[in-house]
Amino acid sequence: MTVPDALVAAVPILQAPMAGVSTPAMAAAVNAAGGLGGIALGASTPGLAGEMLAELRTRTDRAFNVNLFVHAPPRIDRAREAAWCEALRPSFAAYGAEPPEALRPVYPSFREDDAMLALLVEARPAWVSFHFGLPVPAQVTVLKQAGCRLLASVTSLAEAQAAERAGMDALVAQGYEAGGHRGVFDADAPDDRLGTLALTRLLVTQTTLPVIAAGGIMDGAGVSAALALGAVAAQLGTAFIACPESAADAAYRATLMGEGAGHTVMTRAISGRPARCLPNRFTTLAEALTAPVPDYPIAYDAGKALNAAARGRDEYGYGAQWAGQGAPLARAMPAAALVATIAGEIRR
Amino acid sequence: MTVPDALVAAVPILQAPMAGVSTPAMAAAVNAAGGLGGIALGASTPGLAGEMLAELRTRTDRAFNVNLFVHAPPRIDRAREAAWCEALRPSFAAYGAEPPEALRPVYPSFREDDAMLALLVEARPAWVSFHFGLPVPAQVTVLKQAGCRLLASVTSLAEAQAAERAGMDALVAQGYEAGGHRGVFDADAPDDRLGTLALTRLLVTQTTLPVIAAGGIMDGAGVSAALALGAVAAQLGTAFIACPESAADAAYRATLMGEGAGHTVMTRAISGRPARCLPNRFTTLAEALTAPVPDYPIAYDAGKALNAAARGRDEYGYGAQWAGQGAPLARAMPAAALVATIAGEIRR
Repeated sequence: MTVPDALVAAVPILQAPMAGVSTPAMAAAVNAAGGLGGIALGASTPGLAGEMLAELRTRTDRAFNVNLFVHAPPRIDRAREAAWCEALRPSFAAYGAEPPEALRPVYPSFREDDAMLALLVEARPAWVSFHFGLPVPAQVTVLKQAGCRLLASVTSLAEAQAAERAGMDALVAQGYEAGGHRGVFDADAPDDRLGTLALTRLLVTQTTLPVIAAGGIMDGAGVSAALALGAVAAQLGTAFIACPESAADAAYRATLMGEGAGHTVMTRAISGRPARCLPNRFTTLAEALTAPVPDYPIAYDAGKALNAAARGRDEYGYGAQWAGQGAPLARAMPAAALVATIAGEIRR
Repeated sequence: MTVPDALVAAVPILQAPMAGVSTPAMAAAVNAAGGLGGIALGASTPGLAGEMLAELRTRTDRAFNVNLFVHAPPRIDRAREAAWCEALRPSFAAYGAEPPEALRPVYPSFREDDAMLALLVEARPAWVSFHFGLPVPAQVTVLKQAGCRLLASVTSLAEAQAAERAGMDALVAQGYEAGGHRGVFDADAPDDRLGTLALTRLLVTQTTLPVIAAGGIMDGAGVSAALALGAVAAQLGTAFIACPESAADAAYRATLMGEGAGHTVMTRAISGRPARCLPNRFTTLAEALTAPVPDYPIAYDAGKALNAAARGRDEYGYGAQWAGQGAPLARAMPAAALVATIAGEIRR
């Protein structure tokens, strides 16, 4: 296995690009400490993405990673979407609001986003990572010609093999422990729910690509375990949520750093795709709902509206408080200090 | 954290005691190679258990582990059990058989098994391990007075804390990846499904007991990862199923060593408790059944009868073919050779 140059970092840590949480300041701080920082562009317009890229360029001159969502186009199903809104109506009403009249996909898949592709070709980030699937062949060609290295999040051997065939340069092995959106390519297909340890070892032994382990890793011991499994690095997301550079709000931070971190749940009610988060009012509500959830990201339109309505009445329990199973080990410290601390903990 | 003397073995591996798979010959071979062998007595009568213990004594003079089931007493529910048998009737009929007229708990919990306790006090094994819960205080006292060290399988921090309070000497951190019966104390309670990596790290940092990592570990890289996480050893089960010393039948071995190992599923339909196994006719059937499954081990009475009926017609797809998520990495070699191989792979 050849380790890509850009991963031979001082510290074998990728900071997970987390839409709504990670920031250019976080990515730059991670870079400064010797890790590989990243920003999430999947929830941004090309305009906003361009601003984030420009800000990051002013903050770091090192390689960084940008992440895109490459989900399959959602199935529009007006009846299902209307029924979902009706199911949420009492929850909206509790905060003096009404559900949206119709739900829209809140952001396009990168697969269909020519403006975003043009932006990336212009910006030439060292790493471009993908979640929920793979870019189309023409995008792979163009990005590689622009000098980008490509990184695909996978949750199974079959997805890893598809990523190899598609020309990816490395794999993020996302275990079932991981916080946030599970990267399964098809959210409706059977899911073996492979844990980080088993998945990493399977991919290291059964694919030819460098593997980056992700899910439940919070400290140097976890990174050391990933390296022992044959991974070239570990990706950490939840570990960075409580950093001051994070865009997480006060309620999210408080839950993560409190007793609530002791449990996480996987739900698709918030966005339309399975995602691991801290239990809150939304996940409790989801357990009681029987209406089928619209496709990602159409359901997210309702989820974001409900969260906004609740926040308007100072109720923060409907936010997407993503977190992985290692949440009780989260530490609130500046991102650079966290990377340095973890680096000191790594046993090679 | 103090590492119990008996765990300072040449090779930091426990061979998982697996009812129906592990044998005294397997445990002795593991011992001879420097690991800690184990036998499962939970599915045995005291008479059979005595024979297994006697055989193991003739095969090894080193410390070994014996495993007991300490499940809560099952709730007898004749209507539910009858409905379950009715749901299985077409499957029995396909093999010219009828479901049992009534279901019985196929084995008692060790908590209520005075004869088994007397046998253990007489035999004084170095290690006694528990699955599905904890022994009662009087049993803990008597076994400790007999010189036994006590080991509890746990799946969460709350269970680990209960094990600490109960006087256990060490913990088996059983991750969601693990094959066979999930050790949750209450199969009806919410389950965080903690992966081996996250669970091990949580228990190492948040309890005072030595932790043995289990679930998805198949080779020296996996053991090294467990040690990196702070575990004192790793427990491997699936890794030993294909050894010649295993009692697994030919169909089970063939599935494990074939393409079928690429997927595992968690089902409670076979025994009444969640258990991870290779997908087969029973797990496919279970997905289609809507009748509530009787409590463990009452449901197992039906499961074993259905398996026996199918085997009578040369259909092996109803067996309990337990396996963990690392199944594709299984190796068919003598147990001592496997331990030696893994020992050579460990990177300390």
